Amino acid sequence: MQYFENFAVGQKFSSSRRRVEADEVAAFAAEYDPQPFHLDEAAAKESVFGGLAASGWHTAAMTMRLLVPSEFRPAGGIVGFGGELAWLKPVRPGDELRVESEIIELRPSRSRPDQGVVTVRVTTLNQHGEAVQTFTPTLLVNRRPG
Amino acid sequence: MQYFENFAVGQKFSSSRRRVEADEVAAFAAEYDPQPFHLDEAAAKESVFGGLAASGWHTAAMTMRLLVPSEFRPAGGIVGFGGELAWLKPVRPGDELRVESEIIELRPSRSRPDQGVVTVRVTTLNQHGEAVQTFTPTLLVNRRPG
Repeated sequence: MQYFENFAVGQKFSSSRRRVEADEVAAFAAEYDPQPFHLDEAAAKESVFGGLAASGWHTAAMTMRLLVPSEFRPAGGIVGFGGELAWLKPVRPGDELRVESEIIELRPSRSRPDQGVVTVRVTTLNQHGEAVQTFTPTLLVNRRPG
Repeated sequence: MQYFENFAVGQKFSSSRRRVEADEVAAFAAEYDPQPFHLDEAAAKESVFGGLAASGWHTAAMTMRLLVPSEFRPAGGIVGFGGELAWLKPVRPGDELRVESEIIELRPSRSRPDQGVVTVRVTTLNQHGEAVQTFTPTLLVNRRPG
């Protein structure tokens, strides 16, 4: 577990890998993003994606699932205010994703003396090493007590 | 279905409402964001959330589920490059969410003559009219053919 004081700009953290399963892509899309290019092979071929692609929100959710048990373990949990989210390439069934996180900025919280604000760039990569998503959230992290 | 030419800055679109179910909050968190404040009432009370809260990614996914069948129906589907995402207030089991979208900016695509780029501010509100999330994506929208 890493307190605010344990972080330094430039630190990097890795995750394990996760395979993108076709049935999970379809199930997530059916529940949360029921658009043809996430659900139907033929419709997806005719779309801008040129084939079945995971919902961007599914990519974001899988990224979080990789991040939570990764080397990046801020004290108090991963609690974000949000940040810039970018989808760079389609994520396909059969892809294998992993996450690299890098500390970009650190500052004390103005309103919460027991916490600091950490900006981290979270990059989601596929099995070819291509970035498919970046998310750069600001997180609230506990300071070391005392 | 709205082509790029049908949109104008300032246009607003509404969605239906969706109740945030406790079992869905737990199921989403277990699958994609297994942190104690999303899963365990007692741990959540001790956390910065002060009680059980939905994963921000669950809020984003529910927002998309409200957006897809809403009045906002861009030609070619809702296909985004990403944008600024902000979580403003905790979303609790029992909350009722709805989405308001507003066109912020319109410009032709430089690389794709048959498409335009639409920037839309998507605000997710709870039953008290409080904004719980904003997302301001840029979307690729088909131009009217011919």
